[in-house]
Amino acid sequence: MRYELYYWPTIQGRGEFVRLALEDAGADYIDVARSRAKGMGVAAMLRVLEGAGLARPPFAPPFLRAGASWIAQTANILFYLGPRLGLAPAGEAGRLWANQLQLTIADLVAEAHDVHHPIAGSLYYEEQKREARRAAAHFTRERIPKFLGYFENVLARNPSGPDHLVGARATYVDLSMFQVMAGLEYAFPKTMARITKKTPKLVRLAERVAARPRLAAYLASPRRLPFNEADVFRRYPELDAA
Amino acid sequence: MRYELYYWPTIQGRGEFVRLALEDAGADYIDVARSRAKGMGVAAMLRVLEGAGLARPPFAPPFLRAGASWIAQTANILFYLGPRLGLAPAGEAGRLWANQLQLTIADLVAEAHDVHHPIAGSLYYEEQKREARRAAAHFTRERIPKFLGYFENVLARNPSGPDHLVGARATYVDLSMFQVMAGLEYAFPKTMARITKKTPKLVRLAERVAARPRLAAYLASPRRLPFNEADVFRRYPELDAA
Repeated sequence: MRYELYYWPTIQGRGEFVRLALEDAGADYIDVARSRAKGMGVAAMLRVLEGAGLARPPFAPPFLRAGASWIAQTANILFYLGPRLGLAPAGEAGRLWANQLQLTIADLVAEAHDVHHPIAGSLYYEEQKREARRAAAHFTRERIPKFLGYFENVLARNPSGPDHLVGARATYVDLSMFQVMAGLEYAFPKTMARITKKTPKLVRLAERVAARPRLAAYLASPRRLPFNEADVFRRYPELDAA
Repeated sequence: MRYELYYWPTIQGRGEFVRLALEDAGADYIDVARSRAKGMGVAAMLRVLEGAGLARPPFAPPFLRAGASWIAQTANILFYLGPRLGLAPAGEAGRLWANQLQLTIADLVAEAHDVHHPIAGSLYYEEQKREARRAAAHFTRERIPKFLGYFENVLARNPSGPDHLVGARATYVDLSMFQVMAGLEYAFPKTMARITKKTPKLVRLAERVAARPRLAAYLASPRRLPFNEADVFRRYPELDAA
């Protein structure tokens, strides 16, 4: 199966959670909006979004084409891909638990985005800087510690040990957790230096994920887009509480 | 199976999406935090949230106990309950599509909440009124039309006809869509009077859901909490653009 991933071509964004799973599994996939092949590129993505062709249209990128299926919503894509890529637990209970954690990660990612866009996604950051500063104080002091404390606790309570969030093997949830840690460390280095002292298991998890052979190769390749200030995680020093 | 639903006892909130599914199916369940039975009540919910007992702890309410399983995240709970309550399609592709729509509903609900809490959930509305007013102008003019236009389109494209969002029978996604329409009409009556002229299929869907016998009985009962200004959908006239 050759998968087609549709996502904005210049940011990691939510698409990166899917890219990490595909890359870690060595899956055959095309990053459609980044491809220069004929019929590909951003135009191909916009044709799907704006076209009247699909009976099951996506609301927004990322979305995945798998044969005749079109699947959107990051956590939903990963729920579909996980078992097929060997990155999900075997039974229903484990998959629901993985999905529950992935949705909690998605909530954190949404909050990380809204810190620099508290008023509206359609406005520039510069048009909501004052509000962003207020929001960031709460995000860095209350929300990041709460979320990361929760995930540290999940690792501590895992009956199979603290090497993975779900069960005894790596799942897409571990890969996504790495991405969140990397994003938060990029955007809020001072805050994270303080908070991660209390989340050693999460720090080690992120390190182990980054060292997985296929992921390490991916992260060192040009396929891994650099963090930037049009993305979900943005380095605005004025939003990073000391 | 007697289900136990754990959610805040004085608001509809995200728990209501689960309540609607349980009520529509006539399921045997206890609304734990609202129960006055011994060992129940809010204290029972807080014991789970704050306790060290569970290997798979929830991050926040709502969560569901089903025998030995504890399941959190609204869309995840509904993904679990849907097939068991006869409120989900039969195959994997249909269930992923239902989940995709439910997650898009969840995104809309989160944005509806953040309109009155653009800076932080830990602050009172009165402490972020100015910012809320700015955010509301974008939410009512850009976001509600975009989301509802999308769902209207989903109904129009359903190969089984526009009576349901997924397939030819009612699913939990239809029930959740009713709840969103009811909530938005409560919170933003002027905006919705304008927008729903362009979404007649969604309006009819919500009416049909409300007329389902078990749901109609539930909605007329004291079990259905009234909308109020501590909830996700709040009627603040200053946030409802004319």
